[in-house]
Amino acid sequence: MHKSQPTNLTELTKAEIAVWLNSFDTVLTDCDGVLWHEGVAIDGVPEAIALLKSLGKEVYFVTNNGIKTSGEIWQTATTIGYDIDESRILAPIKAIAEYLQARNFRKKVYIVGSEAISNGLAAVGIESFGPGPEILQGKLNDYLAQQVATQDTDDVGAVVVGFDEHFTFAKMLKASNYICSNSECLFMTTNLDTVHRYPAFRIPGTGALLAGLETCVERKALQFGKPNPEICRALIRSEKIVPQRTLMIGDVCEIDMLFGHKCGFQTLLVGSGPSSDYEFNVVLKNPNVNEEYIPDFVVPSLGHITKLI
Amino acid sequence: MHKSQPTNLTELTKAEIAVWLNSFDTVLTDCDGVLWHEGVAIDGVPEAIALLKSLGKEVYFVTNNGIKTSGEIWQTATTIGYDIDESRILAPIKAIAEYLQARNFRKKVYIVGSEAISNGLAAVGIESFGPGPEILQGKLNDYLAQQVATQDTDDVGAVVVGFDEHFTFAKMLKASNYICSNSECLFMTTNLDTVHRYPAFRIPGTGALLAGLETCVERKALQFGKPNPEICRALIRSEKIVPQRTLMIGDVCEIDMLFGHKCGFQTLLVGSGPSSDYEFNVVLKNPNVNEEYIPDFVVPSLGHITKLI
Repeated sequence: MHKSQPTNLTELTKAEIAVWLNSFDTVLTDCDGVLWHEGVAIDGVPEAIALLKSLGKEVYFVTNNGIKTSGEIWQTATTIGYDIDESRILAPIKAIAEYLQARNFRKKVYIVGSEAISNGLAAVGIESFGPGPEILQGKLNDYLAQQVATQDTDDVGAVVVGFDEHFTFAKMLKASNYICSNSECLFMTTNLDTVHRYPAFRIPGTGALLAGLETCVERKALQFGKPNPEICRALIRSEKIVPQRTLMIGDVCEIDMLFGHKCGFQTLLVGSGPSSDYEFNVVLKNPNVNEEYIPDFVVPSLGHITKLI
Repeated sequence: MHKSQPTNLTELTKAEIAVWLNSFDTVLTDCDGVLWHEGVAIDGVPEAIALLKSLGKEVYFVTNNGIKTSGEIWQTATTIGYDIDESRILAPIKAIAEYLQARNFRKKVYIVGSEAISNGLAAVGIESFGPGPEILQGKLNDYLAQQVATQDTDDVGAVVVGFDEHFTFAKMLKASNYICSNSECLFMTTNLDTVHRYPAFRIPGTGALLAGLETCVERKALQFGKPNPEICRALIRSEKIVPQRTLMIGDVCEIDMLFGHKCGFQTLLVGSGPSSDYEFNVVLKNPNVNEEYIPDFVVPSLGHITKLI
């Protein structure tokens, strides 16, 4: 049953914590904002993850990061004290590469996004191009004639959109022409995060870049990040994950908590992310909030777990 | 009453054309695609406009052009044979400038758009900045610290979005921070055209750039172009335009015809625009088309009018 107010783990007795701990076998945890921030481990969290593992919990990392391959994420994690197998990382670039590989994809991919997408595709033998700056110089008509009219659209079988600080009008133009000149052209995105809320900034997310492109091409992209429950369907089907015995931990309500609810997991919101002020003081206090954003449990940081057990 | 099929003017008798001509006193016509294309007058159209004026019709030009001031549009028109007063041009940049002027706007405007917006605002004494290239160089964190954290957000009272071939992630970032750091900051756009359909290309329109920004800031912009009926409210209120005695001419169904319907005008779709194949063969033949997109009348080009009368 859905609870309208989350339970604060810090207010539970040791006995209640023990009951809670026995209610799940598997932990899926978001990475940035829960495990680390800007490459630095959040205080006490490596110990908390180690503790959960020592209690027999199966731990998976599930991220929407579209600027690092799962190998790079694994490297960050390992360097700062997390002991995890790379295969336990669920990440969009890997999911996109697997999706294309399963379809025996043989064309090229145009990327509006990072070098990491290109590397992730190369790892499964898929050719791609696009990352890095692409600026419209000179007049629009000349650019159209020289850069867009000469695009070999038959050769490109997919457009992948990820976070791209080099996003430009020129990239939108090329991507729309690949997508629209061929109805078979796949259109995929790492995630739909519209904005990254830092206390001092609001950083447009992949979902914002994508919204512009989707508006222009009048088509929706397939998305390979949370909250799409498809990204852990294989683990559920193979019974490695039993939804009612699984806990999803995250720092963003509309991504992590929604994902947990969609998958039928228990959910735990932590307060250690860059947008935590917003999550706790705006989202959770909004009377009209989507009830799938409300976590079952909250805790200031996953680091608290070691003190509570 | 709404007609499900438009009447083709070329199939009417001279007598029927005379009745039609007597059914309106005022003509509002779109510019690019109806009167001219890429700065060249469409064959026979200057003569058609002159003929309508000689028959006593009041003619207004109504455009969504956000890359030229109404002065520049007037100059183009005049140079290629149209005789019109500049005050008869309804254009977004002028409308935005008048809107701000009427509110006694004293702050600065951040423009994601063309130099013309800046010139249009300067003409009413409003300071602005932003047009031209703005590229994120170096690392995102450094850019945030040096370029975004130092933004004087109190000083900026409005963000205006127009067509911008220099659109970048960096501009989205700055615009979102102006809009979100101050709830009083106005958020305006020249138009919502999502795409410009050329037979060989699909060019992202202002509406596509705007969709990304709106997604990021979670706010909708005020728009100063068709199909917003507000843009001719003053003319209707002052009875210079009587809706049921007015004809709207355009080349794009979802912009010009929709605008005409929203204003209560008669509508005429011409087939001389870059997207006319799409309008006639896709939009008008789509069984699920929004019925407000369907014109009352069609004609291959406004140039035909002179032969029909």
